[in-house]
Amino acid sequence: MSKILTNRSDDYAQWYNDVVLKSGLADYSAVKGCMVIKPHGYALWEHMRDELDKRFKETGHQNAYFPLFIPKSFLSKEAAHVEGFAKECAVVTHYRLKNDPNGGGVIVDPDAKLEEELIVRPTSETIIWNTYKDWIQSYRDLPLLINQWANVVRWEMRTRLFLRTTEFLWQEGHTAHATREEAIAETQQMLEVYATFAEEFMAMPVIRGVKTANERFAGAEDTYCIEALMQDGKALQAGTSHFLGQNFAKAFDVTFQDKDNKRDFVWATSWGVSTRLVGALVMAHSDDEGLVLPPKLAPVQVVIIPIYAKDPESRAKIDEIASNLIRELKQQHVRVKYDNDDNARPGWKFAEYELKGVPVRITLGARDIEKNLVEVARRDTKEKSNYSLDGLTGNVVGLLADIQTNMYDRALKFRNENTTRVDTWEQFVDTLENKAGFISAHWDGTPETEEKIKELTKATIRCIPINNEQEAGACILSGKPSKERVLFARAY
Amino acid sequence: MSKILTNRSDDYAQWYNDVVLKSGLADYSAVKGCMVIKPHGYALWEHMRDELDKRFKETGHQNAYFPLFIPKSFLSKEAAHVEGFAKECAVVTHYRLKNDPNGGGVIVDPDAKLEEELIVRPTSETIIWNTYKDWIQSYRDLPLLINQWANVVRWEMRTRLFLRTTEFLWQEGHTAHATREEAIAETQQMLEVYATFAEEFMAMPVIRGVKTANERFAGAEDTYCIEALMQDGKALQAGTSHFLGQNFAKAFDVTFQDKDNKRDFVWATSWGVSTRLVGALVMAHSDDEGLVLPPKLAPVQVVIIPIYAKDPESRAKIDEIASNLIRELKQQHVRVKYDNDDNARPGWKFAEYELKGVPVRITLGARDIEKNLVEVARRDTKEKSNYSLDGLTGNVVGLLADIQTNMYDRALKFRNENTTRVDTWEQFVDTLENKAGFISAHWDGTPETEEKIKELTKATIRCIPINNEQEAGACILSGKPSKERVLFARAY
Repeated sequence: MSKILTNRSDDYAQWYNDVVLKSGLADYSAVKGCMVIKPHGYALWEHMRDELDKRFKETGHQNAYFPLFIPKSFLSKEAAHVEGFAKECAVVTHYRLKNDPNGGGVIVDPDAKLEEELIVRPTSETIIWNTYKDWIQSYRDLPLLINQWANVVRWEMRTRLFLRTTEFLWQEGHTAHATREEAIAETQQMLEVYATFAEEFMAMPVIRGVKTANERFAGAEDTYCIEALMQDGKALQAGTSHFLGQNFAKAFDVTFQDKDNKRDFVWATSWGVSTRLVGALVMAHSDDEGLVLPPKLAPVQVVIIPIYAKDPESRAKIDEIASNLIRELKQQHVRVKYDNDDNARPGWKFAEYELKGVPVRITLGARDIEKNLVEVARRDTKEKSNYSLDGLTGNVVGLLADIQTNMYDRALKFRNENTTRVDTWEQFVDTLENKAGFISAHWDGTPETEEKIKELTKATIRCIPINNEQEAGACILSGKPSKERVLFARAY
Repeated sequence: MSKILTNRSDDYAQWYNDVVLKSGLADYSAVKGCMVIKPHGYALWEHMRDELDKRFKETGHQNAYFPLFIPKSFLSKEAAHVEGFAKECAVVTHYRLKNDPNGGGVIVDPDAKLEEELIVRPTSETIIWNTYKDWIQSYRDLPLLINQWANVVRWEMRTRLFLRTTEFLWQEGHTAHATREEAIAETQQMLEVYATFAEEFMAMPVIRGVKTANERFAGAEDTYCIEALMQDGKALQAGTSHFLGQNFAKAFDVTFQDKDNKRDFVWATSWGVSTRLVGALVMAHSDDEGLVLPPKLAPVQVVIIPIYAKDPESRAKIDEIASNLIRELKQQHVRVKYDNDDNARPGWKFAEYELKGVPVRITLGARDIEKNLVEVARRDTKEKSNYSLDGLTGNVVGLLADIQTNMYDRALKFRNENTTRVDTWEQFVDTLENKAGFISAHWDGTPETEEKIKELTKATIRCIPINNEQEAGACILSGKPSKERVLFARAY
């Protein structure tokens, strides 16, 4: 079979697009910057969504749904917020089409112009806090712990499948609290929910950290984030959790009466992850043969492929073994598929399921079965072994757990090997150019130096890690004193 | 406690709004015609979605996601389709805001005008069939069975919470087939999925039928529907399944090569239900005290309320009984809530959970418990009984099943009593004015007569029931010959 994907080492960006398109995760659409999420990609997102949703509910959150449209004037109410989002907004100006009286087909009806334009939500703080004004009167209404699963639109000039698209799917949590401390604790709790999910389900180690002022969410007092390292040595922000202080409460006049009958503005958080996580998953684990999916998220965890001998008895026997195996695996909650389609050759199927990232392939061959054996191939290492039919189900379940652990360990080893401590500007530039990865270095704490480093190298401060070791040093660029190292990288 | 809802008999429309708002299903929003779905309403929708999604997957469908935006020119490609939807479209014309140089705040940037306007999807046939063109080449690519969960926008002048909102949530299935017969079978299969869901989960009997040409989906050859009867005698279309023929395949040039190497246009279906179902559920079952939810969809199925005596031992004992009961009910997959909040009186809680429609309330009173008894109240009939603590879990599970059945039976009895056969125009008008409900009557089969009846009475033909009895008669309006009765009603 001819090679269908570009190699990572030849062109990482092209390899990524090849994997996404050819494994059936997504497709380009007729609308610039928007993609079609195909069934395989959507199934991955559903597994992510369901697991995250469970964790949100376990931490006391409820789902709700707010309007897609935001009145233009709402965006302007929080100064930093409008500054951050106004440049990338889809704007609805009319509400009707009509037939062109001059025969030019269907045109926008100029008589159907909106009095106030509507923005397609780029994020929902403004419409939600305008609503919370009616829902919050007293400390008894707090905390208000709400999440929404929704589509959002940010008009991007340069887009990439899953990583940066004009429309994307996400969840956005929006909570309201009586005290600063409680809101900060919520912000940190949700960051930990994201981090645990990334590590346990995506098998993707993440750094928990805080953004610098330059990289903060527009309207936040503090932005917490999880940062992951991709196989090309670039970082990817995988989730953010914002402590919004009283900014939105003040912008929308949301106050509450406390236990002592005093009124104060409400404290806020917001936090989100998006379909970008699908892109992160691809870039963190996949290889030149295609997707490598962690078993906990794989839509199909085990594929069984028969190789029949010519006699009909062989076929019947293999189908029976498959049928028993499938029943047993399903009892163990394994997502299993039997592909006995006669129109495709086994070799084609092997390549296809490798491309799609199915973690375990079991081949039922007529001759092996006579010896009570089956061939089991694991996707992560591409090792093949013969397993006995006796105890096969238990061993496959064990193998899935082993693959999940191995993928995490491998990604962690990669990150450790690609995190470099540097102490001089020369080392910094040399590492960026010749090794990439995370760079742990001293910085003088000023936005000006951060901006200068970005201009010179395209590297940004990904975060100041949480519980960061305090260590006196000198800024790699300015030489001014620094009290801790921060993590730099070029990033998606 | 003062009455918080308008009575149905006083003002049915006001009662409906009161129930939706005060039970916490939804709220008005700052955007005209759009609503906020509150946690209680969204939890109901989630239960509907999960159950429908399971049934879609069991019938071989996969989920995917297509863009929110549709290029204006796409809408025009199917003549009937654009005619049906152009009048109610939100149109995106610009992609950026900027600061008004004259100091007028944030304005639409005139330099950021789109070359071609984008329509916020009112339904997705056009963008999806434009994509299917790339996905379908051969009969091996068929059938293509895809569903999407999404928000859509239809600019409505007169809106009602859940029943008719500018933005709503729905699912839309879009399938492609090699033959007319297979596509029709799919259309009918999905109608049956909807009907079964409505009857088994919503406890809402529905008529399965076919729409007349006047009432067909814009672009369909046939529209199948399920129609339900609300308590005020008006009908509500609860779901539709469309046989689209080759209309969209022709509009977007989607052909396939069949087994004999001949090319033909692909056959299509589409089918959808929306958050309108939440409104239907309210109108079908609820009463002057609030929501009445069928147990299979109720977010909370059983609420347990303690009435402590003053001694601390009573409290400990009641809490222990509650704790055991909750554990046992959860083992039986019952969604149960314990409300031992000391800040609210039991009477207030009783009214609150009645308003929210919780099917079963168990009161743990100190004195009852000494007699080994608890009080069990069912929401549907408002009957209260004393149950023994022995075997309580099993009896509560049985009661939930009984409530589900009773709600369906009651709604069916109501529909039967409010379906009237009439043979003359006088009977028809009299029934509409004085009884409402479904009216089974002869119609001459012409769109002109149908339109005339609608103008005269506001009644429309809801459907021609599937497997309709053939019976010769005379049209109630024109007197012309008719071969079958059809179902008329005034409708939401």
